[in-house]
Amino acid sequence: MQKQTANSKADQQGYVVGVDIGGTNLRLALADMAGTIGARWSTTTAGSRSADAVVDLICSGVEGLLQQTSVPRSALKAIAAGAPGITDVDAGVVIATSYLLGWQDVPLRDRLESALGIPALVDNDVNLGALGEAWLGAAKGTRDFAFIAIGTGIGAGIILNGRPFRGMGWSAGEIGYMLVPGVSDEPVGYGEPGALESIIGGEGIKAQWQGLWHANSTALPRDVTATEIFDGALKGDPLAQSVLRRSARMLADAIYNISLVLNCPLFVLGGGVGMHPVLGDATQEVLDKWNPRVPVRLQHSVLGADAQLIGAIRLALDAANSPFILSANDKMTNS
Amino acid sequence: MQKQTANSKADQQGYVVGVDIGGTNLRLALADMAGTIGARWSTTTAGSRSADAVVDLICSGVEGLLQQTSVPRSALKAIAAGAPGITDVDAGVVIATSYLLGWQDVPLRDRLESALGIPALVDNDVNLGALGEAWLGAAKGTRDFAFIAIGTGIGAGIILNGRPFRGMGWSAGEIGYMLVPGVSDEPVGYGEPGALESIIGGEGIKAQWQGLWHANSTALPRDVTATEIFDGALKGDPLAQSVLRRSARMLADAIYNISLVLNCPLFVLGGGVGMHPVLGDATQEVLDKWNPRVPVRLQHSVLGADAQLIGAIRLALDAANSPFILSANDKMTNS
Repeated sequence: MQKQTANSKADQQGYVVGVDIGGTNLRLALADMAGTIGARWSTTTAGSRSADAVVDLICSGVEGLLQQTSVPRSALKAIAAGAPGITDVDAGVVIATSYLLGWQDVPLRDRLESALGIPALVDNDVNLGALGEAWLGAAKGTRDFAFIAIGTGIGAGIILNGRPFRGMGWSAGEIGYMLVPGVSDEPVGYGEPGALESIIGGEGIKAQWQGLWHANSTALPRDVTATEIFDGALKGDPLAQSVLRRSARMLADAIYNISLVLNCPLFVLGGGVGMHPVLGDATQEVLDKWNPRVPVRLQHSVLGADAQLIGAIRLALDAANSPFILSANDKMTNS
Repeated sequence: MQKQTANSKADQQGYVVGVDIGGTNLRLALADMAGTIGARWSTTTAGSRSADAVVDLICSGVEGLLQQTSVPRSALKAIAAGAPGITDVDAGVVIATSYLLGWQDVPLRDRLESALGIPALVDNDVNLGALGEAWLGAAKGTRDFAFIAIGTGIGAGIILNGRPFRGMGWSAGEIGYMLVPGVSDEPVGYGEPGALESIIGGEGIKAQWQGLWHANSTALPRDVTATEIFDGALKGDPLAQSVLRRSARMLADAIYNISLVLNCPLFVLGGGVGMHPVLGDATQEVLDKWNPRVPVRLQHSVLGADAQLIGAIRLALDAANSPFILSANDKMTNS
């Protein structure tokens, strides 16, 4: 936690709060109207994952941020939160999250507005990651791109014509279910891991590893994380390299498919697993062998674990400045 | 060819011409400013496929349309043409077509404007098919959808927020290269058939058939078209049904992948092969087994072989009414 006293000019201008709701952690940041982060606050969500509990935690966090910075409550102009699930931005409702939170149809925007008395907005966390990278990260100035977050699961946040593209059912970019060569195309239910992420999401990569593991074939133990496997690949471990090659190939297939649909030249890799440099490099190598008309450039997230939080600040600033700019879907329809 | 005398009111209002440039046929239609087609003209492009030859044919066609309808040349307000290849709408350049035409970087808009002295616009033919279906066809009133044209090859025209989405390199929707389970993900060069279309494009379906064909396994001959194979499936031919099942499965995979990216609820199937009712039905059956959160609805093209031509008329009307509305890419960036 970082402590900083707000200057008086920014005081007059106001502040916003960005919130990143994760399956295990809750992170908040206070920013001035220029978007500069003045203070951070975080806690675990273990044991308090219901929507009510999370809203209470967010309120505590806001209180903590105000105390840290001596910013008066009246200077707070807006708050925006990213949730790990399908989110109806217009209605302010988190429609569904993964099993870890287990939320369904939570009117999070209204709850935050009631609890804090300021305008609130909510969005999917990966969409906010894309917004963050577009604003201050790896995709600054790029009109169309996709932010691919690989953690336990896989999702994409899509920016088209400079704005988040969320889809008619708010689930554009749910690429964890993508069907590429080598996955099963048997139906999976919603909430179950998708075909793609069950192989190259964090848990999928571990499962690949454990399926191949034999004490003779690697110096690494059987129980390692995806990131540790990639570290091993970087150090020349042959089994780890083989898991890396398969994962990179499949990720390249998925990115190639997205690029065929959207023809966007840039993909930003984020998330704990996606940020590993060796994955990006190996995937770029596969992509470079393909279609020369649509060269696809991969870049690692510049904002790292802050991408979603910074996207939330961006959304909160939009809310504070012009509440009507916020629904990209609406805006694009009406423009 | 259909002859019709234009009424005098429409005369005063003006006319536009829509052009559908195909690998084997060239089709033109004259429409009034309400978009009503008054006359049609068509010819073969066999033996005259160079850009110069096609522009000459288009000029003959325009002349023919004016004569048919007794519309004065001065009443022509604009022309728009769809080409079977990647097309830079802003620059008016057909960047590349398939081998049948073999065009590269043809400034078709300028050539048409010079030859005819009226504003011209050019676009990819499948994009125009999507525009046609959005305007007067199966997708009227749908904000986001994809038009999937299956003929010899496979391509998609994408409408997002009610406007064509063409991509930063003008090649959004080049889904003939999509990598789904069962295709090879070895690189193919541009101009070669893509992974998906080499199996379920018209020629791909024929190749599937010929690979499986044995006189004992079917009553149909070895040399049949994709459409005839689907006709056979409808009549209960077991080999034809097996080719249909595989094709429908793979098409469903591709459509599902697109729906994951775009979250659009409607896909319109067009093109000579894509229009076959048995393909749409079998594909819908596969899709219905999947992800219940994003139900995908298939519909056959309402405009059929006219989709591209009617899209071209729509584009020509836009050109006549407001030249600046035409570049969806530009417009969406600036709005």
